[in-house]
Amino acid sequence: MDVIAELTSLIGADAVLTAPSDLDAVTEDWRGRYRGPALCLARPANAGQVADVVRCCARHGVPVLPQGGNTSLCGGAVPSETGPAPVILSLTRMRAVRAIDPVNNTMEVEAGCVLATVQEAAAAAGRLYPVSLGAEGSCQIGGTIATNAGGTSVLRYGNTRENVLGLEVVLADGTVWSGLYGLRKNNTGYDLKHLFIGSEGTLGIITAATLKLHPLPTCHAVAWVGMASPEDALTLLTRVQARSAARLSAFEMINRLQLDLVVGNVPGRRSPIESEADWHVLIELSDNGSGEALDDELQAILEDAFADGLLSDAALAASEAQRHAMWEIRHSVSEANKKAGVGLTTDCAVPLSAVPAFIASATAAVRALVPDLPVIVVAHLGDGNVHFIPFFSFDAWEAAAAAGDRDALAAALRHAVNDEAARLKGTFSAEHGVGRVQLAEMARYKPSAELALMHAVKRALDPQNIFNPGRLLPPG
Amino acid sequence: MDVIAELTSLIGADAVLTAPSDLDAVTEDWRGRYRGPALCLARPANAGQVADVVRCCARHGVPVLPQGGNTSLCGGAVPSETGPAPVILSLTRMRAVRAIDPVNNTMEVEAGCVLATVQEAAAAAGRLYPVSLGAEGSCQIGGTIATNAGGTSVLRYGNTRENVLGLEVVLADGTVWSGLYGLRKNNTGYDLKHLFIGSEGTLGIITAATLKLHPLPTCHAVAWVGMASPEDALTLLTRVQARSAARLSAFEMINRLQLDLVVGNVPGRRSPIESEADWHVLIELSDNGSGEALDDELQAILEDAFADGLLSDAALAASEAQRHAMWEIRHSVSEANKKAGVGLTTDCAVPLSAVPAFIASATAAVRALVPDLPVIVVAHLGDGNVHFIPFFSFDAWEAAAAAGDRDALAAALRHAVNDEAARLKGTFSAEHGVGRVQLAEMARYKPSAELALMHAVKRALDPQNIFNPGRLLPPG
Repeated sequence: MDVIAELTSLIGADAVLTAPSDLDAVTEDWRGRYRGPALCLARPANAGQVADVVRCCARHGVPVLPQGGNTSLCGGAVPSETGPAPVILSLTRMRAVRAIDPVNNTMEVEAGCVLATVQEAAAAAGRLYPVSLGAEGSCQIGGTIATNAGGTSVLRYGNTRENVLGLEVVLADGTVWSGLYGLRKNNTGYDLKHLFIGSEGTLGIITAATLKLHPLPTCHAVAWVGMASPEDALTLLTRVQARSAARLSAFEMINRLQLDLVVGNVPGRRSPIESEADWHVLIELSDNGSGEALDDELQAILEDAFADGLLSDAALAASEAQRHAMWEIRHSVSEANKKAGVGLTTDCAVPLSAVPAFIASATAAVRALVPDLPVIVVAHLGDGNVHFIPFFSFDAWEAAAAAGDRDALAAALRHAVNDEAARLKGTFSAEHGVGRVQLAEMARYKPSAELALMHAVKRALDPQNIFNPGRLLPPG
Repeated sequence: MDVIAELTSLIGADAVLTAPSDLDAVTEDWRGRYRGPALCLARPANAGQVADVVRCCARHGVPVLPQGGNTSLCGGAVPSETGPAPVILSLTRMRAVRAIDPVNNTMEVEAGCVLATVQEAAAAAGRLYPVSLGAEGSCQIGGTIATNAGGTSVLRYGNTRENVLGLEVVLADGTVWSGLYGLRKNNTGYDLKHLFIGSEGTLGIITAATLKLHPLPTCHAVAWVGMASPEDALTLLTRVQARSAARLSAFEMINRLQLDLVVGNVPGRRSPIESEADWHVLIELSDNGSGEALDDELQAILEDAFADGLLSDAALAASEAQRHAMWEIRHSVSEANKKAGVGLTTDCAVPLSAVPAFIASATAAVRALVPDLPVIVVAHLGDGNVHFIPFFSFDAWEAAAAAGDRDALAAALRHAVNDEAARLKGTFSAEHGVGRVQLAEMARYKPSAELALMHAVKRALDPQNIFNPGRLLPPG
């Protein structure tokens, strides 16, 4: 019996799809950049069926490619053009919120649950699931765990990794590991969940998770601040932390060009301050209780900073509408940049103290390749994550094609940026992951001892290399 | 050349000790319960020398037992009575605080640095390293990482695991993995540091770490509360979290017997409240800034709770001396219990919502074995960690010896407690680890799939089984 017939007998004909119309959406990434053939799409209904699929594929030596919401930014969730075509394993049918325990501040969910659904279910119980990102309306919780998704609340609540207490995982031999612990403390051997979190589907199939919840904040204070330099922004960050501690829930920074692109390209957006400042910072404090003092606290910090010459202009949002408008600027950067030209996005993080040096040296490095090239900076400054984006107008991008190999130029520019991050003890992938796009960077920047350890782990857990081969790890 | 001669040639005669007077302190645990022979004590000065020791031991097939401050509560850091005698590898000479970066909120330290030294160095830079526990004056940071130490600040800041950003580790083949990242976000492959954290020396030798720092709190509010039941304590906890969010830094609970033992056996201790309450809770809020409102916040919560009949008595500390006195009660429990009799300490954690059921059923279970046996409860209630302690007066303990096998009785009582934790989806070791003491519990309570995964990881990283053999993992 061939794989498809066997899968059909195991999990049912309606759960094994082979028609091109069914496969189109799952064999191409959402930006249309990567595409590859699949044997079929398997849609198991529970962990037992996932195990059936895995065992069947292992017997036939067919790769298993788990897919969540297919929102990867680095080609991690679609097949390769070459090599054996995989079975794409969708978790979409496993989307129950199994339980919420408000006293324990935990919830148990199945992997196919959409992130926004998780957030809403938590909020309905008066709790916060804090991971929040652009794709939250379509990405699945299993995918966010497999990629250790970041987002805008990492400064306060950590990455996805810090918000997972337990996992249920189907292993390469079809064993189901039930590790759905809901405990804050558990020192009983190796903490295996951390192996699977961020492993991008290469070590096992996450089928369910126990998530950590937090008190739902009841009040927010948001300000927009114009500043002369990233150094000043860091000084202000340190001051806010010293005063507001864990109330600080966001500290985002963009440069002047980014602000101008948003204001110029996205209808309805305008700068919250009248300012010629080169750097713009969004600060958010969050708290529980009545929150009367929260605006006062932020205002006092900003007044002191103004008196010390640290900032040129600042606006404190006076209403929910104004808070929303400030955040909308930040959330509009992708749309604005896509309309305005071609940005070569990077995803570096460096120690916070090195952010100013990184921005300066990365700017110099890209301009050594393309003189006077504009650069966009969009930074989650509070956690050191800087999206440094060499930026071409459409005309300049066309001119680059006429002048030579544009793909090679793009690669050279990204390498130039990543090299500066590496020199400053930073990383080339802070939140987007590796997938297939960053495999060369893995080989280029990771210490050989670290790669060797990863390969040893991969061989130990997936000796047949059936889980998402050709992703995450460069050939060893 | 034999091992000792070879080690001497590699790291120097003064760094390889074999005299009984040198070995006595490192071959017996601090409570005098476990003792075993060692080949020698090696005291390397840097990671390169650690690697030399590891390679030499690997060539000779001699086990390597890393030892920090030798403060393990479960026999994890001293040799076994049987099997090949190990080389004890002390990190004591590697105790530098290499760097503190206040802007990045990180510090880089060597493994042999004493925990209190780490805390003090952070505080001198205006930062907090939050891990705090009884042995902090002698335990070493490397040991706290290898055992994922908990303590009294887990509720607010997490375990040691959550406060480590990077590690330097000597691997089984003598490779030095330099993973001293100081990044909040880094999605570049498997997060290997989490394998070594909590691995109790069985996967590699931690030689240095990059730690996460926090703003140093500038104000505290502390209250002592008498309550009728653990259920009421949980309700109060939920209320404090809803109001104070991350300002809540401790929520500790003890039962009446524990309070009486402290007051009766430790000079200077007295109850902060005049109360016949069966359960006593210590609440601490911490914050930055001036903190004028912090006492008011806690007082308002307690007044509401009193009005609702949730608590019988409460005292808010009015001075630093009163705050200190309340904490001293909590810190005196070990001393009091040692003076008063024999407590069979356990280290369970359960989901917070299951704590009342756990205390009730564990009490019933131990009293099914020994009718009317007193029980002590010392709980880090905020993180679900309950030290449930069947307690014998000295007379009763002697009587138990006369009546039969006392060791078997102690084991049966601990099993009875751990069984109830397991039934409620809890753990038998929340913060103390496994070591040698809990090996039988690992085999008894851990799912076989989880043990098999751990063995696969162990074989992958330490195929020769030279690192701390016979610890953490029951025979596979």
